[in-house]
This record gives sequence, C-alpha cells and structure tokens, in this order.
Amino acid sequence: MPVYNAPVEDTLFVLHEVLKVHENKELEGYDELTQDLTSAILEEAGKLGTEVLAPLNSVGDGGCTLENGVVRTPEGFQEAFNHLRDGGWTALASDPAYGGQGMPGVIHAAAGEYHSSANMAFMMFSGLTHGAYRTIHAYGTDAQKDTYLEKMATCEWTGTMNLTEPHCGTDLGLLRTKAEPQDDGSYKISGQKIFISAGEHDMADNIVHLVLARIPGGPEGVKGISLFICPKIMVNEDGSLGQRNGVAVGNLEEKMGIHGNPTCVMNYDDATGYLLGEPHKGLRAMFTMMNQARMDVAGQGLYQASAAYQVAAEYAKDRLQGRAVTGVEAPEKPADPLIVHPDVRRMLLDQKAFVEGARAALLIAAELHDTIGRSQDTAKREAADDMLGLLTPVLKGFFTDKGFDMTVQAQQIFGGHGYIKEWGMEQFVRDARIAMIYEGANGVQALDLVGRKLAHKGGAVLMGFFDMIKKFIKENEGDEALDRDFLGPLKQASKDMQAAAMYFMSEGMKNPNNALAGSSDFMHLFGHVLLGWSWTRMAIASKAALNGGTSNPDFYENKIRTGRYYMSRSLPETGMRLARIQSGADPVMDIPAEAF
Amino acid sequence: MPVYNAPVEDTLFVLHEVLKVHENKELEGYDELTQDLTSAILEEAGKLGTEVLAPLNSVGDGGCTLENGVVRTPEGFQEAFNHLRDGGWTALASDPAYGGQGMPGVIHAAAGEYHSSANMAFMMFSGLTHGAYRTIHAYGTDAQKDTYLEKMATCEWTGTMNLTEPHCGTDLGLLRTKAEPQDDGSYKISGQKIFISAGEHDMADNIVHLVLARIPGGPEGVKGISLFICPKIMVNEDGSLGQRNGVAVGNLEEKMGIHGNPTCVMNYDDATGYLLGEPHKGLRAMFTMMNQARMDVAGQGLYQASAAYQVAAEYAKDRLQGRAVTGVEAPEKPADPLIVHPDVRRMLLDQKAFVEGARAALLIAAELHDTIGRSQDTAKREAADDMLGLLTPVLKGFFTDKGFDMTVQAQQIFGGHGYIKEWGMEQFVRDARIAMIYEGANGVQALDLVGRKLAHKGGAVLMGFFDMIKKFIKENEGDEALDRDFLGPLKQASKDMQAAAMYFMSEGMKNPNNALAGSSDFMHLFGHVLLGWSWTRMAIASKAALNGGTSNPDFYENKIRTGRYYMSRSLPETGMRLARIQSGADPVMDIPAEAF
Repeated sequence: MPVYNAPVEDTLFVLHEVLKVHENKELEGYDELTQDLTSAILEEAGKLGTEVLAPLNSVGDGGCTLENGVVRTPEGFQEAFNHLRDGGWTALASDPAYGGQGMPGVIHAAAGEYHSSANMAFMMFSGLTHGAYRTIHAYGTDAQKDTYLEKMATCEWTGTMNLTEPHCGTDLGLLRTKAEPQDDGSYKISGQKIFISAGEHDMADNIVHLVLARIPGGPEGVKGISLFICPKIMVNEDGSLGQRNGVAVGNLEEKMGIHGNPTCVMNYDDATGYLLGEPHKGLRAMFTMMNQARMDVAGQGLYQASAAYQVAAEYAKDRLQGRAVTGVEAPEKPADPLIVHPDVRRMLLDQKAFVEGARAALLIAAELHDTIGRSQDTAKREAADDMLGLLTPVLKGFFTDKGFDMTVQAQQIFGGHGYIKEWGMEQFVRDARIAMIYEGANGVQALDLVGRKLAHKGGAVLMGFFDMIKKFIKENEGDEALDRDFLGPLKQASKDMQAAAMYFMSEGMKNPNNALAGSSDFMHLFGHVLLGWSWTRMAIASKAALNGGTSNPDFYENKIRTGRYYMSRSLPETGMRLARIQSGADPVMDIPAEAF
Repeated sequence: MPVYNAPVEDTLFVLHEVLKVHENKELEGYDELTQDLTSAILEEAGKLGTEVLAPLNSVGDGGCTLENGVVRTPEGFQEAFNHLRDGGWTALASDPAYGGQGMPGVIHAAAGEYHSSANMAFMMFSGLTHGAYRTIHAYGTDAQKDTYLEKMATCEWTGTMNLTEPHCGTDLGLLRTKAEPQDDGSYKISGQKIFISAGEHDMADNIVHLVLARIPGGPEGVKGISLFICPKIMVNEDGSLGQRNGVAVGNLEEKMGIHGNPTCVMNYDDATGYLLGEPHKGLRAMFTMMNQARMDVAGQGLYQASAAYQVAAEYAKDRLQGRAVTGVEAPEKPADPLIVHPDVRRMLLDQKAFVEGARAALLIAAELHDTIGRSQDTAKREAADDMLGLLTPVLKGFFTDKGFDMTVQAQQIFGGHGYIKEWGMEQFVRDARIAMIYEGANGVQALDLVGRKLAHKGGAVLMGFFDMIKKFIKENEGDEALDRDFLGPLKQASKDMQAAAMYFMSEGMKNPNNALAGSSDFMHLFGHVLLGWSWTRMAIASKAALNGGTSNPDFYENKIRTGRYYMSRSLPETGMRLARIQSGADPVMDIPAEAF
C-alpha cells in the first residue's frame, strides 16, 4: 500500500523563500510565521498524515455502511478523527473568539495539504465543516454563532452543504425544497437533497446541515432561494442536545471512489430550520461556502497528484525493467530501474512539475485569501478579493483536470500493477476523478471564468493580472538563463492569453458563443500562465539561494531544472489552446442537436 | 443503465463510400462485400450487441468468483457466449479449412466493434482466443493445427497468452518459467504467470494456454525464450479430452475494471507443453499474437469511447439544466437541455470527432491487414505489412489514450450522476483504463514506434507514409472549402510530423534520448495526422455524395461539420507536440534520479 511522506522542504521553500511570509509586516499574524514555527507545524502535520491518515486511505476505500438510518464510517476513522481534533488541526485558522487558534490561512493550507494527500475522503468531513463554519461566521446572527461555531471549529459537530436535488445540480433556479415559516421564526423544511457528502455518519455528536430551500411566495428562480441551518439534532437553549430533527439519510450512493466518505441522499420532512442571512439571498451566502469549497477542491487535484507521484517515483527507482538505451546503468543488477527510460521520466516530470508549481500557486492564493481577511488596507483587500475571484475557477478547474491526469500518469508507471488494487494506484485515480465534478463541474468553472469573471469591473481585474505579469517580467529581466528558460516562455504564454482575451472581447460581442466555446481552453491557458509565473518565482528564489551560497545547492538546482521542464514542455500548450479558442463558435455550434 | 445502439450507418459509410470495399477487385472476398451483405451482417451484429451483450455489461462489473480452483463468470455470460458462438461471430474471418467462414477481416473488425462496445470484458474471451488461434495457424505443425484450430475458431475452446511474470512484464528477457524437454518430445513447464486474462473460467470445455518459457541451456535474455502450447485439459490422439494438465489458477486479481473477465495468476507445475514454432524463437511467434492483440486493444479505446459517447449524447439532449446564453431554446420547459451549452457541445464533439475518425482509421488498418493476407501482389503485401507495422503502435497508443480521455469526457457530462454507479458511466472509464496498459503499455508503444519502426528499412516506410499524404493532398486540392477546412490543416499537421521526424534523425544520432524523450509526443502527433487524413477522406466521400444528389444530405453535411471540428480543434495539437519534441532530452534527463 502507498506510503506517504510530507514534502516539508518543498513547502518551506515556498513559504519562506518565495512568499517570504515571515517578512510580511502587513498581514496580521504573518510575522509570527518564523521558519522555526512553520517547520514545527509542518513536521507535526506530516506525521499525522504519514502515521495515522495514509494507512487508513485504502481501509476507507472499503466504504461506509448504512444500517437502520445509521452510517458507519470505516474502521479506524473515528480514532483518527479524534487525533485530528485533539491536535487542533481543524481549528488552526479559526476565529479565537470561537475556540480557534487564529493562525493565518496560509499555514492551514500548507499543513492541510499533507492530510488531504494522505487521505482525501477522510479530510472531507472536516473540510466541509470548515466551509459551513465560515458561512455561519459570515452570515449568522450572534446567537447562531454562539450556538454553532465553537463546536464546528473543533469538529465536535460537523457540517454539510445541501444544494443538489435529483433534477437540478448546476441550475439551482430549479430547486424545489420548501421552507414554511413558523410562528416562532423558524421554518419547516421539506424536500430531498442528493450527493450530500458526510450527510450522516458516526464521528460527531451533531451534524449541522446548511440547506438551500424556497420560502413560499418568494421570487422564482435563483432569486427566491434562502439558506437555512438545519441541525441533525436540535440544540437546546443551554447548548445541550435535544431531540432528533426531521432530517434523515435515505440512501448511500454507490460510486467510483471517495468511498471513505458517505455520499448521502438526505430527506427533509418538516425538519426545523433557521434562516441564515436574509430571505431569498441564500445563494449569495452559499457562495461564501462554495468559494472556500472550490479552493479546497482545487487543492484535492494537487494533493492526489502529489501522493500518487511519490509512490510512482519510488516505484520507478526500484522496479528493474529493461536497459538504458545509452548504456547499462546498473550492471550489477539483472536490469536497470525504470527511471533510466526517458518516457518514464517524462511521466514523472509531468507530475513533479505540476505538483510543485501548483503547490506554489495554491499558497499564493492562500496569501491572497489572508490579505482579504487580515490586511488593514481597504484597497489591497478589495484587490485581493477581485484577484482571488478571478483565480478561483482557474485553480478549481485546471488543478483538478490536471491533478486527475497526473494520477493516471502515476498509475501508468506501474504497468499492469497499477491496474490492480494491491498497489493502491487506481484508488488515487478513482478518488481524484470526483474533484473535476463537484463544487461546480469544471465546465461550470470555465463558464464562471469567461462568462463572468473576465468582465468583472469592466475587465479591470483581468487587466490587473496582465499588468502584474508584465511588471514581474520587466522587474526580473536581465539574467540570460532566466530570460531564456523562464521569462521568455512566460512572456509568450501571457501573450497567447492576451490574444485569447482579445478574441473573446471582439468576437464575443458579436456572439457570446464565440467566447463560451473556448471557455474551457481559456481556463487551461490561464492555468498554464499561472503555473509558469509560479515556476518563474521559484526559479528566481532558487537563483537567489544559489547566489547566496546555500549549503544545499542540489535542492535549488533541481528546482530550476524542474521549472525548466515545465516551461519547455508544458507551457507550449498555450499556443494550442489559443488556436482552439480562435476557431470560434461555428465548429462547436453548427451541428444540429439531433445529429449527436 | 447505458443502452447501446450500433452505429451501422456510420460503418457502412466508411466501408462503402470511403474504402469502397465492394469495388475492390484485388483482395479476395472483397467483391462479395456488397452493401446488402455488409448491412445484413452489421444489423445482426448490432442486435447481438444491443440485446444480449450490453445488458450484461453492468452485470459483468460485479465480477467473477474463484472457488476451489473453479472460476465462475457472471450470470448470463455462458448463455451469451453460446449466442456469440452459435451466430458464427467468432469464426467470421477464420480459415475455412478449420471451420471458419473465411470472410475478410474488415467485416470482422466492423462487426466486432459493436460487440466490444457493448461489453468489453466479455469480448476479451473470444478476442484472446482469436489471437492464439492466429499464432497456432502461423507457427503450428499440421498436427497442432488439426488438434486445436477448429475448436478455437468456434471458441469451443478458448485461448490465452502467458507472458508476464511477477518480476517482469515489458522486459521479457528476465522471464524464468522453465520448460524441460521430455523424451516424447513434449516439455514440462514450471513457473508462475500473472495478469492472464480468462486464464480460467467456466465457458469453454478447454483452455489453450500459449506460454513463454525457457528451455534450459538456451541463450540468456530474449534470445532464449520459446513458446509452448499448454492445454488446461490434455487432448487425446482422437481429439477427445483427457486428464487435467498441471496448470491451475492461483488467484484472481482485484482490479479497477474489466471485472467481467477474470485476471488470473496461473501456476504451472510440471505442466505438459508442446513447442510452438522453433526453440528459442518464441518471441517472434508471440509477436504474431501481440500485433493482433495490439490492434484489438486499439479498437477497445475507440469502442469504449463510442459506447460512452452515445449515452452522454442522449443525456445531453434529455437533461434540462440552465438556459442557452443566446436566448431560451425550450420555453415550454423549465430549462433548456444541456446540449445548448457550448462547453457541453465541445465535450460531445471531442468524442464524436474522435470516434468517427478512429473508426475510419481502424477500418483502413483492417484493409491493410487484409492486403497482407489476401493480395496476390507480393510488393503490395510487403508494403501493407510495413505500413501496418508502422501504424500499429500509433493505433494502440493513441487510440487508447484518447479513448480513455473520451470516456472521462462522457462521464463529465453527467456531473455528479457520472460519478455514481447507477448510470454506468464510471464503468466505461474504469474499463477503458486497462487498454492504455496491457499488450505493451503505451510508453512501450511509443518506444517501439520511435526506437524501431521509424528506422525500419532505413526510414523508407515512414517516408512512404509522408509521400502517401503528400500525394493524397495534391490529388485532392482545388476545392476551396476542402482546401481551407481539411487539406490545409492536414498539410500543416503533416509538416509538423516531418519536422519532428527530422529532429529525431539529426538529434537522435547525437543522443538517442533526444528521440526517446519525445516518443510519446510523436505517437500522438502521428495519431492526429492519421485521423486528420481519415477525416479528409470522409469529407471527400461526403462531398461526392452531396454532389451526386444524395437523398440524405443531412448525414453528409454533418459528417463534414464533424470533420471540420476535428481539423480546427484537435489537429492544432500537432504544433504543441512538435514544440515538446524539439525541447529534446535535456529537460527530461538532466535531473538526477535521487531528486525524484
């Protein structure tokens, strides 16, 4: 079974040499993130991942069971959940007013990677809880916050999000679940929700469901949707638990992967719910949760790729098969290790270059998130919010598409052994697959990006991104190797991206389908520019370390080599994406529906 | 559960309007392939697929069981296997001297698509048998042929291929299974083989294992490997069955998919085996089987994509979600069908354009195969053999990589419903995944292509391919729309391919890794040129039909539209592949193994 080792050195490099978090005086709490502290946290987080969570990953693949309305999680999950709670990991970045430790999100993201790499299905329990926590924190009344937040920060109670119904997922305007107002100010909720992760389970005293429903008489479509808190067990005035509420699991879905997390059909039958935020404005509130969830899911793409890559790299160094074409490398052995073969290296480097680049990009995004929550400067907060809004669909869509592909590559290195369960590689593929679908399928992310985010503030946010890249290139030009291997390719990729945006602007005006037909290509194009920029930042930091006479030059030289691989072999994809985009709507739209 | 409908009209179009099989006077048996006959065969084949095999696909996903050495296939498989046998489908293209019907391979391939689309795991039983049949047919003594071929043509007995051992798959030079010569001319075989599809099951009276093993005292490495026939049950002189042979299933692998076919660990314990072909030349003989198997597996990529695409297209026309951005299309319904959305169409068209293009290319390859077996012209036979040798790794690697991606796209259209088992979409993904791995992992195909096939006959075969494309373009130039939409893009793609080959030639001489680092990219580049050429041939045939005043213009116009999609949105990938190839060996090789 796969062994997982936390890539602490790589994470520390991004935090302290690329982002330089410890030098950041502007964001509250960043100055406490000394290398001593972060490395202590990351080492501990890695230990939990390696020792407790990773061994449960294949156990979890055996699935949850439903019997008489009770969902049993896989053996060992409860104990592990206690470890996670007791270690304070769930409340690392939560509000100290409600039992949290108040640390910057960037360290929570950095540490959380290891747990989710080690066991994705398991980490969904606390991940969704954190999203629900944030939504109540943002929109709840003081009484609601007092009732729920502390228990949720510590995961004593877990949370869920209830959007999808059998006939509607993406198109929430169609949803039918009803919320009838009661005299006491509460509501009675009735309806069926599907695909509810961790909707019912045996690891928490209570489960706090956030539920989208319609208050009768409200507007039709998405403008008549409200958000409700609906606890599994009613909470008494004194905070103690009362009776069961009218919500129950109806079924567990049989699915492709993430078997360690129960995907529930939830039946609401006059369940008591409490309005969260304003009536009919539930979607806006839910987006708080969804944006967080989208970042979490973006991470899952990276995390599964990272975990799968590690195992594949070890296998490629260990498994003997064939001989290097340039001459025997291990004459004392019956064959050379797989890693001598260029095509095996290509697969490994695709993975390695994606994983390390994506890690940097995700921590850059976490820093933006912290800026929104921790900067004293209103303009900077707003700019960060805009930029993160622009990047969120790219991170979610690109990272999960790529992350899945990379688990497939990792599996491929094992040959037939990758297809059988024994080695655990096929589980990575099955688990990673969901990330392309949930929290808004990747096509919906592309639509959000091209149909909404590009035009936000009249395109000023996108222009801000281009300006940032341009300025970055200008500021760092002058080193021959850097110009050739990094800044040049980045400039070309950014040019492709601008040409694509220009095409959308001119041709999308004539026919919006000219833009939408290329939305997914643009999302990928953008993703490559983002990773190209992240890699260039890492290359610059590595050069600085080498020039500064580091005691560990191999680490930095290999960083630069890996980055060069990304720039020379992954970035050329931007040209292909641009060509597809510029072919416009006609090839996509001119075939009548009945011809499919 | 997915419904499957055989795309008979599309197949007939390729057979009679692109290949014009009925006009081919040169290949024996082609003149009998009238449209009346082929459509009758295809309709019947489709019926078997739709009515018998497709409903068993999800049943088969429940898996086989092993109990006391007996492997039980899923319920209904035995009866379906009788249908397949009784309908004469297994012997359609087999030698009439041994109970076959002697039809051209092209019609066997055309009809076989439907069966394998309907149920891939099921069709592996007869597919492997056919490969074993061909190997005995090519290398067996008359006595061996008399003993085995008729029973195998009809699948009364099935066949297997036994190559892989726990410590070696790709590198067969390492294999250890021993074959001790006996006084009576037979051998005693001892060793363990793994990943043996249909190694043991309950659907045939006997199983004929073809086994690679070493005769003691022979050369080391691949030059000391011999091939043996090793029946599960000994065959008496009179052809009746005798005692059990010393071969038994040790275990069934738990795996990601193709659960309907048992993947066996086979233990040989002094099993009686009979040398097939010459001693120490087993690999050459096995390649007969492998080349056939590679073509079969290439097909699986297409077939799974085709089956998944059908279901996805129906769902996209049926499922209501969101509104068209250019204006409501179904005002009477609560929402428009998914197919109004450009990004959904993009996914469907990626699939449709691949499936139809790949079908044409595969039937072109089947025609080459028939040329080898049926042409009276030695030079044409040799040329066809060379060309098919060049194309085989491309078809296997490119089709299965793409086929898998297309099942993932098809699944994606279902959103969350694609991830749960209920709709059957995730099974297509799990099943299609194996095709990238077995019969030589796709990296091995790329190595075979670039490391061996390109240099075959001093590069003359590759040059022959380029000349053929060039001549084809020249002969068809002059129609403005065809030039712009098809011939122009094909020319560009072919130019990219020639530039890549040129790079390999000049830089690969300096360092073979310069070629091998780009081998997988070249395989994909080649695949696109092949499909671009196939699509151009289909476009030309469609224009001819339209000019000829067809009664069904929609069919041909939509063919041209689908082809245009492929040319404008898939073919630009060749430029990216070329850029990767030209980045050479350094980015792939310069990182030391310990840095992974």
